[in-house]
Amino acid sequence: MSDGTGTEASALVAWSALAEPDDPLALGIVAALGATEALAWVRSCAGSGVLLSPPALDRKQRDALVGALPRWVARLPEADPRALRERADLLGARLVTRGGRGWPPALDRLGAAAPFALWIRGELDPAASWSRSIALVGARAATAYGEHVAGAIAAEAAARGIAVISGGAYGIDAAAHRATLACVGAPIAVLAGGVDRLYPAGNTRMLEQVVACGAVVSEQPPGRAPMRHRFLSRNRLIAAASATIVVEAAARSGALNTARHASELARPVGAVPGPVTSGASAGCHALIRAGAAVLVTGPGEALELAAPLGEVDEPAAVGSDGRTDFGSAQERAAHAGIGARGSTTDAIARAAGLTGGQAQAALGGLSLRGLVELRDGRWHRLSP
Amino acid sequence: MSDGTGTEASALVAWSALAEPDDPLALGIVAALGATEALAWVRSCAGSGVLLSPPALDRKQRDALVGALPRWVARLPEADPRALRERADLLGARLVTRGGRGWPPALDRLGAAAPFALWIRGELDPAASWSRSIALVGARAATAYGEHVAGAIAAEAAARGIAVISGGAYGIDAAAHRATLACVGAPIAVLAGGVDRLYPAGNTRMLEQVVACGAVVSEQPPGRAPMRHRFLSRNRLIAAASATIVVEAAARSGALNTARHASELARPVGAVPGPVTSGASAGCHALIRAGAAVLVTGPGEALELAAPLGEVDEPAAVGSDGRTDFGSAQERAAHAGIGARGSTTDAIARAAGLTGGQAQAALGGLSLRGLVELRDGRWHRLSP
Repeated sequence: MSDGTGTEASALVAWSALAEPDDPLALGIVAALGATEALAWVRSCAGSGVLLSPPALDRKQRDALVGALPRWVARLPEADPRALRERADLLGARLVTRGGRGWPPALDRLGAAAPFALWIRGELDPAASWSRSIALVGARAATAYGEHVAGAIAAEAAARGIAVISGGAYGIDAAAHRATLACVGAPIAVLAGGVDRLYPAGNTRMLEQVVACGAVVSEQPPGRAPMRHRFLSRNRLIAAASATIVVEAAARSGALNTARHASELARPVGAVPGPVTSGASAGCHALIRAGAAVLVTGPGEALELAAPLGEVDEPAAVGSDGRTDFGSAQERAAHAGIGARGSTTDAIARAAGLTGGQAQAALGGLSLRGLVELRDGRWHRLSP
Repeated sequence: MSDGTGTEASALVAWSALAEPDDPLALGIVAALGATEALAWVRSCAGSGVLLSPPALDRKQRDALVGALPRWVARLPEADPRALRERADLLGARLVTRGGRGWPPALDRLGAAAPFALWIRGELDPAASWSRSIALVGARAATAYGEHVAGAIAAEAAARGIAVISGGAYGIDAAAHRATLACVGAPIAVLAGGVDRLYPAGNTRMLEQVVACGAVVSEQPPGRAPMRHRFLSRNRLIAAASATIVVEAAARSGALNTARHASELARPVGAVPGPVTSGASAGCHALIRAGAAVLVTGPGEALELAAPLGEVDEPAAVGSDGRTDFGSAQERAAHAGIGARGSTTDAIARAAGLTGGQAQAALGGLSLRGLVELRDGRWHRLSP
C-alpha cells in the first residue's frame, strides 16, 4: 500500500486537479498507463507544444486523446502536487489517494471510476466508516415528514455505530447530518465542490459541525465550485455506501441518480414511501414500483440493508493458513463465497458482495490457478 | 345453465341456509353428491333419527360427517327453499344459485368454495359487473388521506364503467361506495349478514343508495346477523373481483385477509402506500415489502391491475365457427390462450385468466378430446 506521498500518489493528486471526475478519457489513460506516465505524457506534450504519441496506446486511443489534451494542459498550473498538498495542510485537510493509506476500500467498488484522490476535513476516518455506512439521500424541498424519517434513520444508525453519508444539501441531507450530529454519530458529508467551500451557505454552520465531529469529503481540490455535473459525479461516491436509502424524492431528482449509481454498484437501495398525494414521495414510489428499491418503513428495515461490507465467512482451512495465494481481495471473497456443495456465479457474487462481473473475473482468476472448478454450472473449491 | 328454480337450484338455496360458507364438510358433501342428494341425505337422517350411510362415500368420509350432521339438521326448519324464495320476493331481492341464471362467472374462480347461492338487492346485474370490477378494501379507522385516495380510485373506475366492489363498512369501504355513487358508477356492497340487514347502522342510508343504484349482495339468507367468521368468509367474494386494492390497512386487518384471498385466486393485488408514521398504512407497506401487492399510487395504476377478465383473444377460426365443442368456458379460454408456437401450462393460465390447477384441468379435458397436444413441455392446438 502506498503511503500517499510517492511518485504515483503525487501524480494521482495532480490528476484529481487536471480532470473532472466524469472525464472518461482521463480515467482511461490513467488506467492504461498509470497516473505517473499519463501525467508525464501530458506535461511533455505541453512542453513541446505538439501531440506526442503516448506510449503503449494504439492509434485509435491516441486519436481520442487529441480532444482531451488541451483541457488537461490548461489545468497543469493548478495541478502541482506540492502546491496542492500545501493547500491541504493550510486547510487542515488530509489528502488520500486511490489505494493509498487512508483510502476507503468501499470506493474500490467504483473500479476505474474511483476518484484519483480525496480531500478530507474532520476527525473521522472515512476509510473504515465508508464500509459500514448508510447513505441517506433525498429532496432538497423535503417535507417535515421526510425530514422526520431521515432523522429517525440517522439517529438509529448513530446508535449502532453506522456512519451516515449524505451530500450536505438542504432538506433530507441536512436532516440526516443534523440527527447524526445530535446523536454523537459519524456524519460524512460528500461535497460536490472543494472541502473549503461549505456549500450551500445556509448549511455552513452545520457542515462546520460535521468537520468537528465527522468528515467533510470531496474529490475536488479546494477552491473548486460546486457545479451541476460535479453533483452528479459526486453522487457515485455517496452511492458507494453500504446501502442507499432514498427518503423523499420528486419524480426527477438527484437522489434517484444516486440510487441508480448504487444499483449499478450492486449496493442495496431502499426507498421510504409517503402519501401518494405528495410529489415529494413520487420518486420513491417509482423506484419501488420498478423493483429498483426495497420499500423501507423505518430505521430497522433501513439498517438491515446496510449490513457491513466484507463480512463474508472466510473458510477456516484456506486463506488463513497462508497456503492459498489469492490474486486479490475479490478472489479471496469469491473463494470464500462458494458453498460446500458448489455455487452459481450469481450466488457467489451475492455472498461475496461483488458484482456479477467482479465475481466472474475473480472466479476466472481462481480457476486459472487451479483453486476452483466449474462443474454443471456450479463453482466448486479445489484443495490447493 | 339452470334457470335457478329446478330441483338442484332449490337444494342449493337450502344448503345456503343449512351451512355456513366456511363449513368445509358442507362444501365437500355438496361437491361429492350434488346439492339435491346431499340435502336428501340430511333430511332422511333427520327423519329417521339415525345416521344413514350417505351414498357413494367411503367410511372415512362418512365418519367425518357424523359431527356435522347435527348442525345441519338443526337448521332444516329455516332451510325450506320455497319459504326462502318467498322471503326474497318480499324483500325485492333476487336469488341466484351456483352456475344458474344471473350467476357471476367471476365467482367460479372460487371453485368448490363458491357460494351455494347469492341474495341480490338492487338494479345492477352483478353477473356482468363482477367480471369487470375493482375491489377497494381497507381500514374502518381510515384517515382522510385513505378516504381521499379510495374515493379517487372509485371515481375513475366509475368513469370507465368498472364496477367498484367493497364491504359496506365504515372508512375505506364507505369512501369507495360513496364516490362510486357520486359518479353514477356501479357500486356493489357484499355484506357479511343478510341483505335485509344493512350493516353497520351508520351506513344504512348509504347502503340504501347502493340498493337503488347498484347491488347489495350476500351469500347469507335474510335475517342472518353479520358475525366475525362471516366477515372473513365474505371477504373471498370481494376478492373474486378483477383486482383488489388495499388502500389503508393496519398491520392486522380484515383487508389483508381479503388481499390474501385475492392472491390465492391469482387475482392482482395492489396496495396504496402512505406515511410510514401512519399505522393505517402499515398493512399496505407489509404487503408491498412481501411482494404480495404492487405499489399503487393512484387510479391509473389501480385500474391497470383490473384488466377485464376473459378478454382473451379468441382464435378466429376455432370456437366462433361452431366446429369446436368445448366442454367448459375454462376449456375455451385455455384453448384460446395457447400461442401460435405452443405455450406452457403457466403461460396459458396467465393468458386465460385461470389458476394453474384450472388450466391443467382444462388442458387435460382438451387433450382427451384430441384438441390439444403436449410436446416438449408446451401445449399445441390441433386442428379439430
